[in-house]
Amino acid sequence: MLTWRTDLALEAAQLWRESAGEAAELPGVESAEELREGYPVTTVRILDGRGEQALGKPAGTYITLELDGLARRESDAFGRAARALAAELAPLLPRDPRAPALVVGLGNRAITPDNIGPKAADHTMVTRHLVEQVPEHFGAFRPVAALAAGVLGTTGVESGQLVRAVAERIRPACVLCVDALAARSVRRVCRTVQVADTGITPGSGVGNAREALNAQTLGVPVIAIGVPTVVDAATLTRDVLAQAGREELEPHALGEAGGGLIVTPRDIDTQVHDLAKVIGYGINLALHPGLTIQDVELFLS
Amino acid sequence: MLTWRTDLALEAAQLWRESAGEAAELPGVESAEELREGYPVTTVRILDGRGEQALGKPAGTYITLELDGLARRESDAFGRAARALAAELAPLLPRDPRAPALVVGLGNRAITPDNIGPKAADHTMVTRHLVEQVPEHFGAFRPVAALAAGVLGTTGVESGQLVRAVAERIRPACVLCVDALAARSVRRVCRTVQVADTGITPGSGVGNAREALNAQTLGVPVIAIGVPTVVDAATLTRDVLAQAGREELEPHALGEAGGGLIVTPRDIDTQVHDLAKVIGYGINLALHPGLTIQDVELFLS
Amino acid sequence: MLTWRTDLALEAAQLWRESAGEAAELPGVESAEELREGYPVTTVRILDGRGEQALGKPAGTYITLELDGLARRESDAFGRAARALAAELAPLLPRDPRAPALVVGLGNRAITPDNIGPKAADHTMVTRHLVEQVPEHFGAFRPVAALAAGVLGTTGVESGQLVRAVAERIRPACVLCVDALAARSVRRVCRTVQVADTGITPGSGVGNAREALNAQTLGVPVIAIGVPTVVDAATLTRDVLAQAGREELEPHALGEAGGGLIVTPRDIDTQVHDLAKVIGYGINLALHPGLTIQDVELFLS
Amino acid sequence: MLTWRTDLALEAAQLWRESAGEAAELPGVESAEELREGYPVTTVRILDGRGEQALGKPAGTYITLELDGLARRESDAFGRAARALAAELAPLLPRDPRAPALVVGLGNRAITPDNIGPKAADHTMVTRHLVEQVPEHFGAFRPVAALAAGVLGTTGVESGQLVRAVAERIRPACVLCVDALAARSVRRVCRTVQVADTGITPGSGVGNAREALNAQTLGVPVIAIGVPTVVDAATLTRDVLAQAGREELEPHALGEAGGGLIVTPRDIDTQVHDLAKVIGYGINLALHPGLTIQDVELFLS
Repeated sequence: MLTWRTDLALEAAQLWRESAGEAAELPGVESAEELREGYPVTTVRILDGRGEQALGKPAGTYITLELDGLARRESDAFGRAARALAAELAPLLPRDPRAPALVVGLGNRAITPDNIGPKAADHTMVTRHLVEQVPEHFGAFRPVAALAAGVLGTTGVESGQLVRAVAERIRPACVLCVDALAARSVRRVCRTVQVADTGITPGSGVGNAREALNAQTLGVPVIAIGVPTVVDAATLTRDVLAQAGREELEPHALGEAGGGLIVTPRDIDTQVHDLAKVIGYGINLALHPGLTIQDVELFLS
Repeated sequence: MLTWRTDLALEAAQLWRESAGEAAELPGVESAEELREGYPVTTVRILDGRGEQALGKPAGTYITLELDGLARRESDAFGRAARALAAELAPLLPRDPRAPALVVGLGNRAITPDNIGPKAADHTMVTRHLVEQVPEHFGAFRPVAALAAGVLGTTGVESGQLVRAVAERIRPACVLCVDALAARSVRRVCRTVQVADTGITPGSGVGNAREALNAQTLGVPVIAIGVPTVVDAATLTRDVLAQAGREELEPHALGEAGGGLIVTPRDIDTQVHDLAKVIGYGINLALHPGLTIQDVELFLS
Repeated sequence: MLTWRTDLALEAAQLWRESAGEAAELPGVESAEELREGYPVTTVRILDGRGEQALGKPAGTYITLELDGLARRESDAFGRAARALAAELAPLLPRDPRAPALVVGLGNRAITPDNIGPKAADHTMVTRHLVEQVPEHFGAFRPVAALAAGVLGTTGVESGQLVRAVAERIRPACVLCVDALAARSVRRVCRTVQVADTGITPGSGVGNAREALNAQTLGVPVIAIGVPTVVDAATLTRDVLAQAGREELEPHALGEAGGGLIVTPRDIDTQVHDLAKVIGYGINLALHPGLTIQDVELFLS
Repeated sequence: MLTWRTDLALEAAQLWRESAGEAAELPGVESAEELREGYPVTTVRILDGRGEQALGKPAGTYITLELDGLARRESDAFGRAARALAAELAPLLPRDPRAPALVVGLGNRAITPDNIGPKAADHTMVTRHLVEQVPEHFGAFRPVAALAAGVLGTTGVESGQLVRAVAERIRPACVLCVDALAARSVRRVCRTVQVADTGITPGSGVGNAREALNAQTLGVPVIAIGVPTVVDAATLTRDVLAQAGREELEPHALGEAGGGLIVTPRDIDTQVHDLAKVIGYGINLALHPGLTIQDVELFLS
């Protein structure tokens, strides 16, 4: 039913409702809204096959934080965002606070809208070697390893394959994958963080479904953390057409104009930088429960 | 008459013809087409006030090279592009091959679609100090200085002001300014180089007309070299609407969706890198007539 | 009398005493020590021609902060260092808190031990355009412009010439220049910040004395802020020889081994990064007296 | 017998001879010299346990190319260097030209003298995915994957472990590892490439022997390609002392002056950049025998 691609379960649900009529009830899906540290948080639960089919996504929990206040640089916006993300991540982690974790940054470091994953990995507190080598100082930390998996074009190896190879060797108790997503609505670009307990299929966003990273393939929980950084150019044009009352237009009418083009904020470099830091810090606060933002800063500086 | 912004005189002329009807004659404007090293070159001459008003640009010569073959990596595409650009630049330079030149890269180095100017300056053969200090080896070169002018947000000084300050002190006989442009048609983005003998107004593209860089303000010829790297998101949507037969739609129908958004190729980093090198090499070949691409490579490596 | 080059007045005075005997009194020079925010601060005042000749530096005040605690990441080491620097800079600035300032980063951005100047400029709060354009919000700030002057090899223009050109046009009431220095003692490398009210001669450290930046040439006070990031390889070897009791060795005995080589900390990238931030923040706190470190962070983020 | 550390077998042999007297014969070691593309090439073969003990390195073949002409930018210096390296690498590769290879860049990308490995990997033609996915065009190429293994501090995983994990999964028929080395003589820094068929122990240079990468651990031939980019500061001082006729000085006399300090060329950034390209291109020419430098350039551009 969905013609227009989105990686956000929240948007998929809205699109379903738009096409089915607001009165219709979305089968096999529950959703709830709340505020966390002042930011709106929506939780969409896809419960069964009906929900999977309606939204085109695997069953599981999808949590969306809307961080509009971050760009407006509201008071303590960064700290509140990192703590809100940590609060959503924490229940998805193994109970044992010393169970080892692997943080994976997916995407191409050389392409700005695609490098939020590698940049978030740069902000991760890497402790695995310290816990092993300097246990007298770091024994209380959870062992955390980090990996920027690169992209097929620069490694010749699927990032899914690479992560599986490393996970098999170092045997983490959970994996957190950070990736750039595509949204359907321009107003969500660089404003939204989605946390999902379903794992991720690297490159699925660009039509190259590759080796999935999830509990089936890795044998441990895989938490996906994503930020939409682009909208397909074709998607933008359809939004506008819809707004102008021309919903009947077919995709093919959009022609080739949108081929290979993306829509992105003018200051994408700054926005990706800021969001990668929020994600890295949120991960750190979730993986090492006792720490404050200042502790993280001191560790990473 | 033009509602839709473009920095390309070629596009402005096409838009005029579209709105006036193909039969109408564009007053005060001459144009001609030819092939140069296999690439189409269009020269638009705005002759007088009628042409200025019709196209919304100052009188002067605007030369457009269409480098589609470059992205397809055709045989010797880079060399032919650099030589074609050099051939168009050469007649605009002072006759004296030793008259000093200043190359200015405009734009923000930290923002990919805006950093083609600084990157082209990086590829410029800087010889001014060598001609002065090692005349026995470099006495035959034209003295060339290069300046990446930064942006107001990082310097606190208008780039126009900065260039004027430097030009007054080092007194070049001509100035070449490289900048990113905005196009109206997505198919011209990162495919087109425009050379104009009219100078440039930094930031005019984004609604901030600042101190112009032209023969009036600098007292010497100012050649502007520009590449469109983005299309306003609103412009794209209108292209699609037009294609879909909804030309009657008014801009305001596009609403706020396009605010602060740009449309750009997915691989903008690579494309800007390639084009900046073409421009730098084209400038070098034009400023130092005897050199080959290999000579330039050896000098810069 | 000094055979071994140092940019630090503190070291020059120590070398003088070593060669003259500890009992000898250094003529025309006063010095004093104190603690500032826990860091040792030494002030050397060269009072007259006798002091100038003895230390090989122009008359003026040279303040040295020794920031060893910074590398050890002592508690609040960064904040204390930035505030200590600000406290030393403040008395050298014009009294009027709204008198405009120009911050200049000297050195080559592409060479790690030489890029502390450009990096410090990146951490400067640039306000000149905001004070002009948005006086209702920024009217209370001092107008500050920043310039990374590049190097002769990449611009073809002496950085001294460039700074003079810009200063003549924007007419600041004072100039602060940040540059990398050479020390004689390896233990001062990346541990020391020198503030001098005498200005600076860019490139003097590497045997290329160029256009000086000082009150004579710019017509306003010029404060030089420098950090030694390298020691000449030949200097290191002499230190060792001296330590081994072979002080009688002549420089020529060191032969060609040291030609073009520098001695630098293994983690120079990190250390320059940290020190550039200390300097940028110190400058900001001095130029905008009411601000805290947190305010600066918010402005720059 | 060797007090002073070097990663170069060539230097180790010279040091042995210096300490044993020129007349003494180095047991269990053969060496030979020749010219390749105008560059001197020395092959040192450690034949047995006597040789291993004398030189402190495992038995195997160590080939040293001395590329002094490269820095002098002699005619076609780059092309000759890449072809000379390829000619030395070729006999060490599996005979089957389609046997898959893995190229590994060791070292810390953020530290200039340590990033020659990751940078050489950037210049590698990665073909593994193309051979699989587009066999009609790339079927004739050898499948090559590339990996920049990061460092323990940023990943929490030994690079040896990481490479083993990836090699186990993608099963190359040979591995080529590129790493920065330490030399004893400053005149070899950034002038020498060593090729060894013995594999490598990442981090062994800095006192952290970690998981070795060699035929034993990976099950396939491992070729190590290294460039000395630094000399320990203590080593330099000893060279000078020796030159000054004070060979009897003991290391401890050098005291703490050299702790954590390295000696490196002033223009290390440029030199590492150039050498990484020579290595990447040499690897490409060796792995894909029919190609020319121009072919490689076209592929990578």
